[in-house]
This record gives sequence, C-alpha cells and structure tokens, in this order.
Amino acid sequence: MFPCYTPEPPYYAVIFPSTRSGQDPEYQVMAAKMESLAALQPGFLGIESVRNESGDGLTVSYWETEDAIHSWQKHPEHKKAQAAGIALWYDDYSIRIAKVERAYKKRGSIAESAS
Amino acid sequence: MFPCYTPEPPYYAVIFPSTRSGQDPEYQVMAAKMESLAALQPGFLGIESVRNESGDGLTVSYWETEDAIHSWQKHPEHKKAQAAGIALWYDDYSIRIAKVERAYKKRGSIAESAS
Repeated sequence: MFPCYTPEPPYYAVIFPSTRSGQDPEYQVMAAKMESLAALQPGFLGIESVRNESGDGLTVSYWETEDAIHSWQKHPEHKKAQAAGIALWYDDYSIRIAKVERAYKKRGSIAESAS
Repeated sequence: MFPCYTPEPPYYAVIFPSTRSGQDPEYQVMAAKMESLAALQPGFLGIESVRNESGDGLTVSYWETEDAIHSWQKHPEHKKAQAAGIALWYDDYSIRIAKVERAYKKRGSIAESAS
C-alpha cells in the first residue's frame, strides 16, 4: 500500500535516500528480502520506497520507538546487507532518524499529536 | 544533489508520499515550479524527490523550523498547487511532519545531535 498506513503520531521515521552504483541483480533480491524482514521486526509500522530509472531511491520506514530502529539496525541479516550496500551497491546515501509529530492524509481523518 | 546536503540536526522534515492519477503534463511544470519556489523560502534546507514509472512518488523536504514549514504551506502559489494536487493530480497522498534528530552520511562526518 502506498502511501502506507501508520497510526497516529508520535512515532519514528528512518529517511534513507540513496543512489545506486550499478545494475547488480543481487541488489533487487536483497532489497526485497530486507523489506520483508523489516516488516517482521517488533515495532515496525510501515515502509514507503521508490526508485527511479536514474538509480535515485528514497525509502522511509516507520517505527514505534527508537529502540525498535536500533534493534533492526543491529539485526545480523540487516548488518550483512548494510555492508554489501556500502561496499557494492550505493554510490552515496544518507540516513536520517526523525520523530514524526504530525500526519495528514488525503482521505480519512487528520491525525495530529497533542504537542 | 542527491542525497541533498543538510546541516547537523535538529531540523524538520516534511515526508510526502503520493500516487499520481494520470499523465497531465501540467503536473511536471507545476512540480518543478514548486521545487524552485520552495528553495527560495526562508528556512528551506533541501529536498529529495523520486517518482517511478508506476506513478508512486516520495518527496522529503527539509526545513530549519516548523514555522518555516507553516509559512511555505500558506504561500499563495503553493496553496494553488495544493488545490490542483487534491483535485486533479493525486490519487492519494500523506504528509508527515517530523523532527530530524540524528543523521549519518556514507561519506564525510557523522552528524549526531546531543539528545
């Protein structure tokens, strides 16, 4: 589902823009595997991921807590994927950890935090 | 530049996933105009935007303060674009406002907030 469903804030987002360095078909397999595995982790709320033909990609995953993000970052399978990403797949990337404070949707109710 | 440069946290992110409803060429013109106009607003830090062939798009813009985001949301030209987006261009979208607390890059120094 795109945009993904998320509960009312507050919750956390991991914002991950990246540029691909090539067309390694193993990348697609690993990326799909990591999305499936992330979805099984405690505290996972959802993920939105888009990559265009130029190789620019933007992935935002949503999590209940910062601890859930830390646990996923330290997951053994995810660590392997991270190492391959750094060594082989990404020309460049950033990771930003952000606390979602307010959220609106086109359809349905406006979800807004108290703060 | 992708990923875009941003200063050390804290700062704010507007996370905007959307699905396009058609191929209206006016959309591209308006989207490019809005990116250029956003970049001129006080407090604008950067933008990352990707859309794939299926029409799924993910845009994250970065801002110094929440006030800067509010001012941009109320900009008359942006209001017109928002109305057209709701009426004509987007099947669905979400908007999430988030406070970026930590950030890492592949190259260069790790920027990390005190908290």
